[in-house]
Amino acid sequence: MRHPQEDNCTKSIFVPFLEYQTLSVDTKNLRLITRLQAAMVWIDPELTWNTSDYPVDEVILPVKNIWTPEIHVTNGIVATMQHSSRDLLVYSNGTVKHTVIINAEVNCEVNLFNYPFAADECPVAIQAWSTDGCGTKLAFRHLKMVDGAHGDWQTDYVNFQKKRDDRNYIMVSLRIKPANPFITLLLPSMLIILADMVSFALPLTGGERNSFKVTLVLSFTMFLNILNDQLPGDSSCSPIIRTHFCICLIILVVSMLVSLVLTRVAQDGGLIFCCCSKRTGTKNTRRREEEQSEEVKADISVVQLDASGESTQLLRKVVKFLEALDAKDEENEKSQWIANLLDKIFFWIYFILGTVYFCTMTTVMVKYRCKVDHFDFWYDQNY
Amino acid sequence: MRHPQEDNCTKSIFVPFLEYQTLSVDTKNLRLITRLQAAMVWIDPELTWNTSDYPVDEVILPVKNIWTPEIHVTNGIVATMQHSSRDLLVYSNGTVKHTVIINAEVNCEVNLFNYPFAADECPVAIQAWSTDGCGTKLAFRHLKMVDGAHGDWQTDYVNFQKKRDDRNYIMVSLRIKPANPFITLLLPSMLIILADMVSFALPLTGGERNSFKVTLVLSFTMFLNILNDQLPGDSSCSPIIRTHFCICLIILVVSMLVSLVLTRVAQDGGLIFCCCSKRTGTKNTRRREEEQSEEVKADISVVQLDASGESTQLLRKVVKFLEALDAKDEENEKSQWIANLLDKIFFWIYFILGTVYFCTMTTVMVKYRCKVDHFDFWYDQNY
Amino acid sequence: MRHPQEDNCTKSIFVPFLEYQTLSVDTKNLRLITRLQAAMVWIDPELTWNTSDYPVDEVILPVKNIWTPEIHVTNGIVATMQHSSRDLLVYSNGTVKHTVIINAEVNCEVNLFNYPFAADECPVAIQAWSTDGCGTKLAFRHLKMVDGAHGDWQTDYVNFQKKRDDRNYIMVSLRIKPANPFITLLLPSMLIILADMVSFALPLTGGERNSFKVTLVLSFTMFLNILNDQLPGDSSCSPIIRTHFCICLIILVVSMLVSLVLTRVAQDGGLIFCCCSKRTGTKNTRRREEEQSEEVKADISVVQLDASGESTQLLRKVVKFLEALDAKDEENEKSQWIANLLDKIFFWIYFILGTVYFCTMTTVMVKYRCKVDHFDFWYDQNY
Amino acid sequence: MRHPQEDNCTKSIFVPFLEYQTLSVDTKNLRLITRLQAAMVWIDPELTWNTSDYPVDEVILPVKNIWTPEIHVTNGIVATMQHSSRDLLVYSNGTVKHTVIINAEVNCEVNLFNYPFAADECPVAIQAWSTDGCGTKLAFRHLKMVDGAHGDWQTDYVNFQKKRDDRNYIMVSLRIKPANPFITLLLPSMLIILADMVSFALPLTGGERNSFKVTLVLSFTMFLNILNDQLPGDSSCSPIIRTHFCICLIILVVSMLVSLVLTRVAQDGGLIFCCCSKRTGTKNTRRREEEQSEEVKADISVVQLDASGESTQLLRKVVKFLEALDAKDEENEKSQWIANLLDKIFFWIYFILGTVYFCTMTTVMVKYRCKVDHFDFWYDQNY
Amino acid sequence: MRHPQEDNCTKSIFVPFLEYQTLSVDTKNLRLITRLQAAMVWIDPELTWNTSDYPVDEVILPVKNIWTPEIHVTNGIVATMQHSSRDLLVYSNGTVKHTVIINAEVNCEVNLFNYPFAADECPVAIQAWSTDGCGTKLAFRHLKMVDGAHGDWQTDYVNFQKKRDDRNYIMVSLRIKPANPFITLLLPSMLIILADMVSFALPLTGGERNSFKVTLVLSFTMFLNILNDQLPGDSSCSPIIRTHFCICLIILVVSMLVSLVLTRVAQDGGLIFCCCSKRTGTKNTRRREEEQSEEVKADISVVQLDASGESTQLLRKVVKFLEALDAKDEENEKSQWIANLLDKIFFWIYFILGTVYFCTMTTVMVKYRCKVDHFDFWYDQNY
Repeated sequence: MRHPQEDNCTKSIFVPFLEYQTLSVDTKNLRLITRLQAAMVWIDPELTWNTSDYPVDEVILPVKNIWTPEIHVTNGIVATMQHSSRDLLVYSNGTVKHTVIINAEVNCEVNLFNYPFAADECPVAIQAWSTDGCGTKLAFRHLKMVDGAHGDWQTDYVNFQKKRDDRNYIMVSLRIKPANPFITLLLPSMLIILADMVSFALPLTGGERNSFKVTLVLSFTMFLNILNDQLPGDSSCSPIIRTHFCICLIILVVSMLVSLVLTRVAQDGGLIFCCCSKRTGTKNTRRREEEQSEEVKADISVVQLDASGESTQLLRKVVKFLEALDAKDEENEKSQWIANLLDKIFFWIYFILGTVYFCTMTTVMVKYRCKVDHFDFWYDQNY
Repeated sequence: MRHPQEDNCTKSIFVPFLEYQTLSVDTKNLRLITRLQAAMVWIDPELTWNTSDYPVDEVILPVKNIWTPEIHVTNGIVATMQHSSRDLLVYSNGTVKHTVIINAEVNCEVNLFNYPFAADECPVAIQAWSTDGCGTKLAFRHLKMVDGAHGDWQTDYVNFQKKRDDRNYIMVSLRIKPANPFITLLLPSMLIILADMVSFALPLTGGERNSFKVTLVLSFTMFLNILNDQLPGDSSCSPIIRTHFCICLIILVVSMLVSLVLTRVAQDGGLIFCCCSKRTGTKNTRRREEEQSEEVKADISVVQLDASGESTQLLRKVVKFLEALDAKDEENEKSQWIANLLDKIFFWIYFILGTVYFCTMTTVMVKYRCKVDHFDFWYDQNY
Repeated sequence: MRHPQEDNCTKSIFVPFLEYQTLSVDTKNLRLITRLQAAMVWIDPELTWNTSDYPVDEVILPVKNIWTPEIHVTNGIVATMQHSSRDLLVYSNGTVKHTVIINAEVNCEVNLFNYPFAADECPVAIQAWSTDGCGTKLAFRHLKMVDGAHGDWQTDYVNFQKKRDDRNYIMVSLRIKPANPFITLLLPSMLIILADMVSFALPLTGGERNSFKVTLVLSFTMFLNILNDQLPGDSSCSPIIRTHFCICLIILVVSMLVSLVLTRVAQDGGLIFCCCSKRTGTKNTRRREEEQSEEVKADISVVQLDASGESTQLLRKVVKFLEALDAKDEENEKSQWIANLLDKIFFWIYFILGTVYFCTMTTVMVKYRCKVDHFDFWYDQNY
Repeated sequence: MRHPQEDNCTKSIFVPFLEYQTLSVDTKNLRLITRLQAAMVWIDPELTWNTSDYPVDEVILPVKNIWTPEIHVTNGIVATMQHSSRDLLVYSNGTVKHTVIINAEVNCEVNLFNYPFAADECPVAIQAWSTDGCGTKLAFRHLKMVDGAHGDWQTDYVNFQKKRDDRNYIMVSLRIKPANPFITLLLPSMLIILADMVSFALPLTGGERNSFKVTLVLSFTMFLNILNDQLPGDSSCSPIIRTHFCICLIILVVSMLVSLVLTRVAQDGGLIFCCCSKRTGTKNTRRREEEQSEEVKADISVVQLDASGESTQLLRKVVKFLEALDAKDEENEKSQWIANLLDKIFFWIYFILGTVYFCTMTTVMVKYRCKVDHFDFWYDQNY
Repeated sequence: MRHPQEDNCTKSIFVPFLEYQTLSVDTKNLRLITRLQAAMVWIDPELTWNTSDYPVDEVILPVKNIWTPEIHVTNGIVATMQHSSRDLLVYSNGTVKHTVIINAEVNCEVNLFNYPFAADECPVAIQAWSTDGCGTKLAFRHLKMVDGAHGDWQTDYVNFQKKRDDRNYIMVSLRIKPANPFITLLLPSMLIILADMVSFALPLTGGERNSFKVTLVLSFTMFLNILNDQLPGDSSCSPIIRTHFCICLIILVVSMLVSLVLTRVAQDGGLIFCCCSKRTGTKNTRRREEEQSEEVKADISVVQLDASGESTQLLRKVVKFLEALDAKDEENEKSQWIANLLDKIFFWIYFILGTVYFCTMTTVMVKYRCKVDHFDFWYDQNY
């Protein structure tokens, strides 16, 4: 069960076939969980026999009784290698054929900048053990990807690449399937923004618009929470959609606050929060007017005491009441006119800035490419 | 403990009985978790003895001291084989009887197109180890399914099938139990659409309808989230219900936005978002009218100064006020009439298109059958 | 470490004491997680010694050096047996005393029909390994249950039973603790139904009732979701409470839709969704009336030109306006009267049917007993 | 590697130092997860040597080659003992020094009656293996608790206690940290009750109060759900806060239902749900009045045909209309007065009973102490 | 495989290179999960050979056949050491080169006082086994941190430090990435407080403000729950943000309750909850007035019976009605004026106190530094 030592202290292992499978991608923690099945062929000089002495070409041996090579996933946080079977086949010339299964969890800082349309390549470094020029050397031939369309991420293709002679890796091209995040995040958020824009059609007074807008804002915070539950924390290529959602939230809140303030403007014709000025004024004015009319009435009542005169006087009161109503109405209408004017101005500002922002954000999302170095696990140990 | 080698390098293992049990189906990740219990009978020539020398027919041996065959689940992501007991029975002619338990997690891209009425067949490939014609060969006889009605999926039947002589598999027929997803997803979503349709009965003005509709929309997004939590990402046979829910959401939002806009129409008689045109007009008109009436009044006041004349004048004012009220009412009613008309037109369009869509979608859901190739794990390694 | 073989090929193991503990019950997946601690006594003829040669009565031996019996939980999906200590006691006559701990997860299709007042019995099959009459035989004596009041399920009692001589099992009587599901599911759902019934007290017009009812409906769907998260999928004895909740949801929605429609009736006096009929009529009528009055006025104005006549005419206009208001009021009141009448009729239908339904459902819940066969794991393998 | 047998069949192990750490407390399942680090010193007569022969005082040996004692946590559901290192130190006189780490999950039915101010003591039984007087005996000296302020529970102190000579246990004093449950459960629930009480300030009519109250009720059910997710099921010392929350929910619902009913009273002046009585009455009355006035008018019109008479008649109509309005107002006011009166009476009943209930509940929570027997795992096996 | 014993009973292990990686930080349980990869070089005198006898400089040996040193993470709750390969390299002079991987979960009470801007240093104690001066001694040289920007926490730097000669540790500087908690917790909570402040712009009457405020309060409790789910329980340096959220919640509730009470004030002009006083008063007053006017009318009716007199009388009634309306209006306006005045006063108090509080809290959050002793796991065992 010893390492089959050779003169140059390096053992060559031929890997004619490697099956790659992406089990899942942990978007939150940026980890790639893979399963590799590697067929291996090597020559163990100690396992040769003379077919004349022992007349069989091949023999089945328990795997635990002979030396088998190890395959490491260098950038794997967790990597376990298992024998796919407890027996292996040895030929009379010492050739050993065996298959191993490697489950690895690889740390891959996938570029999520363009989420939910993110795509990136992740290396899965495959190496054998080797120290100071001694150890095992791998030679790969075929690589096959199975079941690439499973789960939230699509594996587009895989291929062998190498950085250095002993630094082989499988380059895995991953692409997020945008259907789920689009439906659960982008679509509702866009519909909320749209509803907020159209909600300017609602009348300022009556309380409808503000409750509508606060409902939209609170729903949006819910989507922000869902987004943050699904996405990893800040990093160099942090998803731009998070910033986008934040800006959208602030836009929604500002739009809501403006509506709140304009509701007050529509009611009072202004926004003076200082105490006790206005009402006393109107009260005094009205009281003075009433006093004057009382005087007038008094004068008249002295002069005219006949029935017809009294009825005229009473009618005058009725007209005065109606005129007061009308004046109040007029005043209200003026306040509302000011509020509506401000509302329309704000709406157009909101609409234009919103459209400009939306176009800019879409352009950035589509055009900008963020670069992540995936090979920082291979550094030179200068010791 | 060596593999009992024979001349043709292949060992035959008889599996008289195989018990199949579906432990669970992971709908989100499309995995089938199964438990197999296989009784095995084989002949180990090295374990024979002469009953005349050692006068017992059978002997109990610890399982770890003799060679036992391995059963692999080829398409299992995780598959562990355990001995069901630590002892096994050996007969004097070398016949060995043993039972093993296999827990396997199989990747099965179940066809969920017709979710929540999905049904599909999943193969569980059962093979023994074999390389270059050397290895173990399995011969199956009985297959029994136990406890098929457990969990979210119903296992209808299982049977042995084979692709090639050494490619045996158990075909597992799975059917989702529709009660749970129907009650938690389909029923509420249908009720929400129904409520949205009936909500056209609510009056446009008064704020009730819009808040009702926004509540429905937000609840629907909640159901969309629940759906996406339960269903896997996009794939070839992606569940049509997701598309259906998306379309429903858009329908709900459009219906809400139309209501918002019609509320404005009902109030203003139009939808002009440009500033400061209308009100100044009405104001000017009214002011002009008032000036005219003032003139008229002035003229009259010169002519008639007697009390009866004044009372007539006052009454005229009262009538003018009431007529102004009436005109305003008339105008409001006209706006509301237009809005109601548009509302009714939109309702009928909504109702007809909605019904057509619903019928189409139901037909597609019921009739269309999506095909998934479940045997892509068995490819030919051409190396 | 070999199995202590005897003539009849069967080894008897005495289990003087078995401690049973229910660790938890997985209501969602219908699994019973148990922990068994079994004291075992057996005689190993190979471990006897002559106390005259070696003058001690008992000796402590490492457990891994001698043979120990295995206890299987036949219907356990997962079952692990551990030695409670690494040493065991051997007496000079070959008697061995040892204790093992078995953790088992048993598939038990608990009858949840009467949930949340469900109670059922689950068998935990305890057997030793035995094939073709060879193997180990268990003889039980005492069974003690510890800590039965832990978790969501109450273990009422346990006792030994047997189906056949070699088919021993512990019958575990389980009863759900109804406090939690009652408080979180039944109580709120009953309160929601009650609130919906009382909400008929709210006036039809004003928008209050509909928003109240939609809030109740959406809360109820939330409880339906919670229920489905806690209960397993469909099965033979599926909990009736799920059907009950579905019916309640439909009742709530129907009650809401009726309210929506009656709101329209209260406003318009009918439910005609066809376009443009009604309003033109009222308009024409009114215009015609006005024209007539104009004519009348014209006639009168020719005849009477004196001030008093004019004032009478003006007063007539005032009265006409007030009468129009009154007529409108009258019409509204009529519509509301019809709507209120329909509302009261619907309320009484709702109340009576609801009460009848509630009594029926309570009776079914209390009286009906659903039967589940818990012994389908013991079938006869006819091979 | 055999147990170092001595004459009295019992081996003494000295545990000079034991480090106790509470890793976490599972409040839902009432389990205490602990970590123990035990230094052990014992004498193995077989490991002595003569320092004259082999001139070193101490030697390092691999732990797996010699016998080491086991420490069991008797009431542990799961308990694993690991060697803290793979080597240990042996002195020439046979003294062995070693350290082991024990991770145990202990079933401890913590008294949660006074939750969230619960505090209780849990025993962690520490014993060595021993059967029929043979085995290992532990002698403890120092006990140190580390890191007691971690997680949701505070470990106040630990100390050694014993029930019997061989029944040692660590008494762990646990106290829940009330900050989290107080903030997330008690505070919001108290604020909801307070808001419900103050919501009586809202006017009955206008729809505000009922929607306010239903929002409070539904939020409260949410808190009830959170509470039940955090607390274990029913048991002997079930937390009183659950009952308290239930009563609060019922109070909130009753208060809401009373508001609903009083809204109807405020509108109709009564609560008669029977059909078609009232309205016809008012209709008839009014119609009769109108007929009478028509007659009067007819009479008058015959007698007086002059203009002044007609204007008087018209004025009479105006006055009649206004008086009808006034009467309606009066009637409304009366209904509202009754409703407000009932509302105030209910408020005072609610306020007084609520205060009494609150005081009682606080007293029970603070004063009552529930007792749990934590030693039911140590029973006498009479077999 | 024995420990290579030397005279001074201590074996020196040289660790030329140590790779540190923070896998994740469990903020809820305050645990640091790390992965260490340590290259080790040591001399095993028993593994030397004479290159003249056996002419190779280096030989590859299976790791399980020779002694390898152990590295412990002293403050690790869970710590597992694995060999990075199954073979290692031995030079002819006995130098052994090997690499091990250590996965450790370290209890680190991170100072979260300034959350979400928390930063702290955590020690990861790395020691070899050593008892009574016997054992292994580690000598470190290089330390490299890889992948520090992964997950929710940023690892700023790591460096070797030591407390005592045998107490080495890696000081890990951690800093929380504030983006996620800021966006999901701080930003929405600040926006809610802002919206609550601006909601004073909403009119008191009309029901809008109270429903707006109750929505804000309930959303805030949701954020409080999210906060408590993410943060650990109370401890010495408990995050101040929890207290801040509590105070904010109480502020929101008080502001809501004041609005509720002022709504009543705006309606009734006072807050008298005692029964039946006010209304009877107004009723009596009005009735008396009516009686008086009846008397007056009666008197007048006796004196004047002509038509003109009657019309005057009728007009008087109209004026009386309008004056009553006006008086009611006046009264209402007075109540509302009082309520608005109180509202404005409360708003300014709220605004000023809120601003002062906000500044104080920000100062405390930014300036105050809480100290945590991270080395309490190294205490002196005085036994």
